[in-house]
Amino acid sequence: MKYAIAVDIGATNTRVALGNSEGELLGVETFRTWDFPDPVKYIEKIARIISSLREKFKVDIYGIGVGTPGPLDVAKGEVLASPNMPFKRLEVVRLLKEFVDMPVAFANDAVAAAVGEKFWGDGAGVEDLVYVTISTGIGGGVYVDGSLLLGKDGNAHEIGHVVVDSQERLVCGCGGRGHWEAYSSGSGIPRFTKFLAERDSSLAEESQLARKSRIEARDVFEAYRAGDKLARAVILEVKKFNAYGFAAITNYYDPELITVGGSVALNNADIVLSGLEGDVRQYAINRVPRIKLTRLGANVGLMGALALGLGFEKKIPLR
Amino acid sequence: MKYAIAVDIGATNTRVALGNSEGELLGVETFRTWDFPDPVKYIEKIARIISSLREKFKVDIYGIGVGTPGPLDVAKGEVLASPNMPFKRLEVVRLLKEFVDMPVAFANDAVAAAVGEKFWGDGAGVEDLVYVTISTGIGGGVYVDGSLLLGKDGNAHEIGHVVVDSQERLVCGCGGRGHWEAYSSGSGIPRFTKFLAERDSSLAEESQLARKSRIEARDVFEAYRAGDKLARAVILEVKKFNAYGFAAITNYYDPELITVGGSVALNNADIVLSGLEGDVRQYAINRVPRIKLTRLGANVGLMGALALGLGFEKKIPLR
Repeated sequence: MKYAIAVDIGATNTRVALGNSEGELLGVETFRTWDFPDPVKYIEKIARIISSLREKFKVDIYGIGVGTPGPLDVAKGEVLASPNMPFKRLEVVRLLKEFVDMPVAFANDAVAAAVGEKFWGDGAGVEDLVYVTISTGIGGGVYVDGSLLLGKDGNAHEIGHVVVDSQERLVCGCGGRGHWEAYSSGSGIPRFTKFLAERDSSLAEESQLARKSRIEARDVFEAYRAGDKLARAVILEVKKFNAYGFAAITNYYDPELITVGGSVALNNADIVLSGLEGDVRQYAINRVPRIKLTRLGANVGLMGALALGLGFEKKIPLR
Repeated sequence: MKYAIAVDIGATNTRVALGNSEGELLGVETFRTWDFPDPVKYIEKIARIISSLREKFKVDIYGIGVGTPGPLDVAKGEVLASPNMPFKRLEVVRLLKEFVDMPVAFANDAVAAAVGEKFWGDGAGVEDLVYVTISTGIGGGVYVDGSLLLGKDGNAHEIGHVVVDSQERLVCGCGGRGHWEAYSSGSGIPRFTKFLAERDSSLAEESQLARKSRIEARDVFEAYRAGDKLARAVILEVKKFNAYGFAAITNYYDPELITVGGSVALNNADIVLSGLEGDVRQYAINRVPRIKLTRLGANVGLMGALALGLGFEKKIPLR
């Protein structure tokens, strides 16, 4: 039995766990990322949790796997100014090694999740697999022909930044116009709702949702379930753009299986996944894969970080 | 020195060549595909050319590489009803082996071209490479991390079938709505021109182009160069959709280099490639790769078939 540390860095929460090569998480600790806005103190906090897990379980640690929101400089082991995080620059690998002196494997969070799916989820034995997260943003991790895709800068998975709206009504957090993420993600859905409400007063007039001062994605889904007219208009387009996005994934990677995670999908699977395969068939030339919710749930990224810490994914080695 | 036969099957012409492992084409024969609408007689014609090349050059042939328009059943070595070809079903591998008894490697034409680019073009030494053809259709072949992408059915390269028009004004030859190929390909541009002329009479009124009874892509480019108003409107949108398509390629595969071929691009590079990298930057989150015309020109597919016939690409073996 081997043991490793898994670190799941998120814009809201950071989770640190100790797990083993059977895929068991033995201890998980969570803290709020924004409580440690200084990069050195933030990594120091992670290091303290690692030390306490080590003392508690008294096992040899093979390595540390880290999944983090991008953009990354993979070569340097750094997170560059990530839109929703407090850091301008976070030297994950250098600082972690300084504090705990263990080998570190480091990946984009959605890539880490794809690794988790591949080794411990529904992707086991699947050669052609895409993991899609619909959360604050839309990201992915991709296996084709059994091999994790990286690309020249390690970013051959930026699925959320495909143009889906040729009217280019919204600008994405990355600056790109009309991107899928700008409409269908946890941050996009509220903005898209406000945009449609402002543009079409007939939608706004009859809508309870439009009267809220602060709209979150969950409010839009709730209003949709209650039959709100504005929410219906938003979700209709969100679902169309989801079909475009999953069709692009189907055509570009030809996967056998797409698994879906992230809070927006996990909490609203009844709406997000409903009818999706049929919708994708309208826009895909390739044979449409099975599309299903990840059975690893909110742990998929942490499980992936564990697999990375155990050195399971040869294309993201410990160093 | 090794020798192989290269077969480049096209909707218009079929080319059969004998080449060597230095990438030299020693003899090339061309005939019109539609002159042999019967699949057995068509393959027999190819076999006769192979025999005559063999007699003429008196060398040992290592194998036969074939590039062909899809859709393919790769496992069976067949072309299924390809939209612009005379055959309902073309059993390339079985029939060729029956007539000439040599090992055959078989791939989609754009994939073959990517192989050509990788071994003999600008892709030599490039680990992350996409070849894009803009011809009757829009297709591609993709290397990520040095590995040719295949996917569950061998189709992890259907780049032309991404949705670019969220108004879904045109339906693609494949039945998908709003696909890039339906607007920006050799078959799409004339249809898109007619569509815009019918929908906007002010564009059609002042246009010489609109008066033509039969419009081809080359007419639209010519009219664009002459300042025709309808052609200008068409090409403006075609170029926008090209930017969406190349941005999708950039985001999904993270290539270091994209090379472009196909008659539409080769004959109109002044328009198709002009400003493209800058346009792509507006829609891509990943670092935009170099985008250039293939220096293998119209031979890129034949060169790829030669590489396949020589057994250079391990993921598409001779059999």
